[in-house]
Amino acid sequence: MISNYELLAERVRHNRLKDKIMTPQEAASMVKDGYTLGVSGMARAGYPKTFPLALAERGRGGEKLKVNIYSGASVGEELDGELSSLGMINRRLPYQSVKSIRNHINNRTIRFVDQHLSQTAEQVRYGYLGKVDLAVIEALGITEDGGIIPTTSVTNSPTYAREAEAVIVEINTVQPEELEGVHDVYIPGDPPFRREIPIYRAQDRVGLPYIEVPPEKIKGIIGSDIPDNPYSIEIPDQVSLAIADQLCAFLNREVNAGRLPATLLPVQGGIGTIGNAILEGLADFKGVEIYSEVLQDNVFKLMEEGIIAAASGCAITLSPEGQKRYLPRIGLFKDRLVLRPQEISNHPEIIRRLGVIAINTAVELDIYGQVNSTHTMGSKMLNGIGGSGDFARNGSLSIFATPATMKGGNISSIVPMVTHVDNTEHDVMVIVTEEGIADLRGLSGEERAESIIENCASPLYRPLLLDYLREAARISGGNRPHLLDKAYSWHLRLQDTGTMLP
Amino acid sequence: MISNYELLAERVRHNRLKDKIMTPQEAASMVKDGYTLGVSGMARAGYPKTFPLALAERGRGGEKLKVNIYSGASVGEELDGELSSLGMINRRLPYQSVKSIRNHINNRTIRFVDQHLSQTAEQVRYGYLGKVDLAVIEALGITEDGGIIPTTSVTNSPTYAREAEAVIVEINTVQPEELEGVHDVYIPGDPPFRREIPIYRAQDRVGLPYIEVPPEKIKGIIGSDIPDNPYSIEIPDQVSLAIADQLCAFLNREVNAGRLPATLLPVQGGIGTIGNAILEGLADFKGVEIYSEVLQDNVFKLMEEGIIAAASGCAITLSPEGQKRYLPRIGLFKDRLVLRPQEISNHPEIIRRLGVIAINTAVELDIYGQVNSTHTMGSKMLNGIGGSGDFARNGSLSIFATPATMKGGNISSIVPMVTHVDNTEHDVMVIVTEEGIADLRGLSGEERAESIIENCASPLYRPLLLDYLREAARISGGNRPHLLDKAYSWHLRLQDTGTMLP
Repeated sequence: MISNYELLAERVRHNRLKDKIMTPQEAASMVKDGYTLGVSGMARAGYPKTFPLALAERGRGGEKLKVNIYSGASVGEELDGELSSLGMINRRLPYQSVKSIRNHINNRTIRFVDQHLSQTAEQVRYGYLGKVDLAVIEALGITEDGGIIPTTSVTNSPTYAREAEAVIVEINTVQPEELEGVHDVYIPGDPPFRREIPIYRAQDRVGLPYIEVPPEKIKGIIGSDIPDNPYSIEIPDQVSLAIADQLCAFLNREVNAGRLPATLLPVQGGIGTIGNAILEGLADFKGVEIYSEVLQDNVFKLMEEGIIAAASGCAITLSPEGQKRYLPRIGLFKDRLVLRPQEISNHPEIIRRLGVIAINTAVELDIYGQVNSTHTMGSKMLNGIGGSGDFARNGSLSIFATPATMKGGNISSIVPMVTHVDNTEHDVMVIVTEEGIADLRGLSGEERAESIIENCASPLYRPLLLDYLREAARISGGNRPHLLDKAYSWHLRLQDTGTMLP
Repeated sequence: MISNYELLAERVRHNRLKDKIMTPQEAASMVKDGYTLGVSGMARAGYPKTFPLALAERGRGGEKLKVNIYSGASVGEELDGELSSLGMINRRLPYQSVKSIRNHINNRTIRFVDQHLSQTAEQVRYGYLGKVDLAVIEALGITEDGGIIPTTSVTNSPTYAREAEAVIVEINTVQPEELEGVHDVYIPGDPPFRREIPIYRAQDRVGLPYIEVPPEKIKGIIGSDIPDNPYSIEIPDQVSLAIADQLCAFLNREVNAGRLPATLLPVQGGIGTIGNAILEGLADFKGVEIYSEVLQDNVFKLMEEGIIAAASGCAITLSPEGQKRYLPRIGLFKDRLVLRPQEISNHPEIIRRLGVIAINTAVELDIYGQVNSTHTMGSKMLNGIGGSGDFARNGSLSIFATPATMKGGNISSIVPMVTHVDNTEHDVMVIVTEEGIADLRGLSGEERAESIIENCASPLYRPLLLDYLREAARISGGNRPHLLDKAYSWHLRLQDTGTMLP
């Protein structure tokens, strides 16, 4: 990259800082064994790439070097993949979604800390997570004043940059410069006596378009021309479309009942195929605002179509086609697009104030509406809780979506008892599957169970769930009857026979 | 009470409203079968008494009459006890703690809806919980403008009064008039476009000292001279004192490490013997603010001693001695004592802003720090989640306290897997028992388990928990190893043999 010195120097508008331009190898040489690195990036957007690749070279060279990686959320193969496969990660938080690192997490060779995404920055500032030695931040460039301009995500970078001993800026010259001005960087004060966060609409701006950092703290500026790992978004299948249809019909009924305005309330949508299908379904409504975490292709498509009036998030994660289509002209969206720190995109204060409609997916959920968002069979971590708890706990409507079955019907997503709880029944108002909607608001435990089984379970499993509920009511009684000796019998059967069906 | 017409008339400063003074029987006659009553009261403080007793007379007379009771939280025997024993309650929310109603809830003859206490008022305004037909509010009196002055709690009364078709005011002439001015009644706007709640310190006032209601909506004013059911607070036992000692030593270490100011951050404390012992332990600190839900004896004791600088809550629940000692001179505390609606005392926005130290008790918790706050053996409801989730989810420090064992050592409060999850591990930073402190901040799943077992479990159960953890790691593997066929073996053994010990 140093061969591209001039290209980089052009992006560094602060004159003295041009002296800090170096190779990724030089920057990576600053890392000491045991360091904690605070890195940018979420949902494979805006994470450093040449820096971790250069760090991996040191490990590959046989050096004994282990670091803690604090990120925004999931990053790409260049970071989590490379460093974990070389055994170079000690502690990792608050989220991940790359297969190679997941194996290490499930072997417990990496210490994984699963956190609500709104909480990491605050906990770093409070000193709960130890010292951050080095912040490594992907950037478009550096302003005249030394401000770091983020790329496709803001995540926890503002706090990492402020709290770290030193900062490395990785300028990515293939990220579109058009992104400048999209970001709104705001760090809340610390208690006691802090003030409100003055955001009242999705598009409100309250901070600066760059990350403020004393120029002398920037110890290295390196280059990168590696694009974000693209996020493959599958064409919605029948099931995803059916879920989206059910959900949008429900939202329409809420509008008609006067419980939601015609433009809805600001929407948070999950990531992936179901999340995208649901967003697509919002075409029924006009002028919707998005107050979410990760913004994917459909957000931009619907902004172009005038369905979505404004969008706030903390990362832009696009498919390969989306990268081509939207990134070069992202400037066109600037007046109604804001990228924030994840502490703000996911902040309880704002989510509650705006009355966000929170739509998240579940790994499995049970007859009383307890939601498992993280683990299979009670033990194995998938990705992490992410922002689901931030939004579900504070939204005015909390919706969880899942296909009724998985693996060709051999797994029911609705089980007697989930094997891990990440979002409790208290935070689950509506459940949607391709079978229908369970509206749990104001229902007792028994009514919740009946509604979920009747409306959301697959017909394959419905009688079995009812049998469980009735037997539990007869034998155990109580307000939420369960059979502790049979609660996990479906999971054990799956383990033994490959299916939850008897 | 009507014989005390003059006593009542004196409390009704709005002249025209004096015409609405009637007997409890007359007021209770307005209730129709199927009505939803929104009643004042929390933690047996400030709930209507003569009204439900008169309503119970109708049921006792053989009339078929079932109502839904929406309260603040738990109320006294006159309401939950009487009406439930006569089979007069259909649906009940969001909390309860009277034994007689608990039996009905666990027989599912009453439909109980267990809610975060911050959410009920909002869900009523949003129309999620149907129409409130009649609000019944215990009051000190009525102002010149028709404002209702609450007594020992504010709870959800402001919203019930606003949303209900009609309002009954039950003036309790044995509640001390000195309470006038303690209340701060504020109802947040509804989304979209609502503003912040401008509370920045525990003692900030942002509303009115009474509940605003159009006078024509008040359809009846009745009298009462029944005091709140007192709350018996036991002298702290050795275990509670040891828990308080551990916790206060931990807080002192946090202060010394610079992670907490010397005056701490505003404290939320649970109710009951452990909660009181912990508050007593705050005597180590000076100038502490309380931002909590229920204020008990020790809050007033420590305010007198200058330890507690200010206290905000939504109910005052005192022991019989406390009632005698503090209620008559409650006016002395008025400049540093605020009673708020529970939506505000428990509001995520404020709790997060203030950085509240949340201290709650657990029914049981497991090796990874999942907390059960509500159910025994996965099925039987105790009281409800109450405000624990509101505070634990949003506080800057989230602490759960429990004795390490119950029933003479036959029950371990720390189990392999809890049978119901109300507060997830993501919201549990610190666990304290009489054995010690597990500081879980920044720890992985395995480290959490080791810390909880080593520091908090009873020595009786420590080796058994370690055996479970090791066997699970060997057989299931994963990030949080569990054995689905043995996760509840301790509970099943307890059921069979009366002890969790093998």
